[in-house]
Amino acid sequence: MKSSRIRIVLVAPSHPGNIGAAARAMKNMALDELVLVNPKQFPDPEATARASGADDVLSAARVVPNLAQALTGCGFVAATTSRDRDQYFRIMDVRDAAVRVVDESRRGPAAVVFGAERTGLTNEELESAHALIRIPASTVYPSLNLGMAVQLVTYELFRARAAPQPTAVAVPPDAPLAAPEEMERLYAHLAQVLEDIDFRDRTQSGTHLMARIRRFLQRAELDHNEVSILRGILTAVQSRRRPAGGGPR
Amino acid sequence: MKSSRIRIVLVAPSHPGNIGAAARAMKNMALDELVLVNPKQFPDPEATARASGADDVLSAARVVPNLAQALTGCGFVAATTSRDRDQYFRIMDVRDAAVRVVDESRRGPAAVVFGAERTGLTNEELESAHALIRIPASTVYPSLNLGMAVQLVTYELFRARAAPQPTAVAVPPDAPLAAPEEMERLYAHLAQVLEDIDFRDRTQSGTHLMARIRRFLQRAELDHNEVSILRGILTAVQSRRRPAGGGPR
Repeated sequence: MKSSRIRIVLVAPSHPGNIGAAARAMKNMALDELVLVNPKQFPDPEATARASGADDVLSAARVVPNLAQALTGCGFVAATTSRDRDQYFRIMDVRDAAVRVVDESRRGPAAVVFGAERTGLTNEELESAHALIRIPASTVYPSLNLGMAVQLVTYELFRARAAPQPTAVAVPPDAPLAAPEEMERLYAHLAQVLEDIDFRDRTQSGTHLMARIRRFLQRAELDHNEVSILRGILTAVQSRRRPAGGGPR
Repeated sequence: MKSSRIRIVLVAPSHPGNIGAAARAMKNMALDELVLVNPKQFPDPEATARASGADDVLSAARVVPNLAQALTGCGFVAATTSRDRDQYFRIMDVRDAAVRVVDESRRGPAAVVFGAERTGLTNEELESAHALIRIPASTVYPSLNLGMAVQLVTYELFRARAAPQPTAVAVPPDAPLAAPEEMERLYAHLAQVLEDIDFRDRTQSGTHLMARIRRFLQRAELDHNEVSILRGILTAVQSRRRPAGGGPR
């Protein structure tokens, strides 16, 4: 079974042991692409010890300074969170999410993002996610160890990849999901246009408004072509606002 | 959700960190009965550190000198193994096994047994098991960390317990599975009878023969009444062999 372009991203892991444990969990479940965003301590002997047998995954891990770089070129992005988030996120059970991630990895690179041990992912870090992953757990003590969470997700990914393929693929393979950096350009463009047209929402401040818009556009899971369409519309809106040669406003 | 009489048994764990990790995994998945057979090092600060938040499960852990004591009073016993075992075991995928263990825990205490980190369970330790649990994993590197294996099994147990109950229970609740110590008495009785009757298998030595018999009787998953029946038959065989008052042999 090929590892099929699924990226495991750990954001700001503070315990090197968890990085090693994640690497081993990945290798056990036939995944090999580990990206570390700003790890507190890496490389580290504790990481190496816990990776036991998965040294290759660990030493091939990419270290990057921010989440955006970790997600460059990705299509579908799923993020794990143990906290309750507002309802505008698409929230998927880890089992369903795994099936989805595997499907999406056939369109292009997909990623699962894990937050730091104590703090999880910030709202800002969640903004590139198309869906949040929920791991069922005790309500008394739902907070899983980071390495354990990676193990459960990669296990479900392994099962999903081993499952028989559906005969019909609903998603056309020639329409890759828009990459995070493309979505960022869309949001920047949109924010500019909202400013250009002096749009104000009566109920929300400007920051909240963009957050809400981002949220539902992330849920829409736009592909490259759809982003192009939106960008085209935004550009069209802007050209209307800047009449050439002193025409009427 | 109550923890419903499911026992997690670690046989001779060598790394105290794994004991702590197992305790946390259990608490995350709403289980609380941990039994340690002859742990190399326990209690230990590393176990406490890794248990983080599950100190109650850890401090309530029972330490016993052998597997038989860990399984006293148990009905269904499932054992994890990463090695290929001979074909006479019943082997269940961890997902199906979890459903089964949860079902059985409604009849009486059930147990899942995990072997030592490097060596796993010995053939002797597997003898009390009704079934072996297989965790799907990469063929390149299938050997999971002990704590991770506990996490995956308890996760599937949690899901199985959360699943809607079947409307009909196939197994009558008034027929608890025979406890391991009861099975041991049965096997000892049987071995005695085989000796009494001077039974020799032409193809196998005495030890192998008993191992094979144990294997298929474990697969039969006898309940208390069925063991009583067998014991009655064995006793009957023996009384026939010891004629009272010098009667004809």
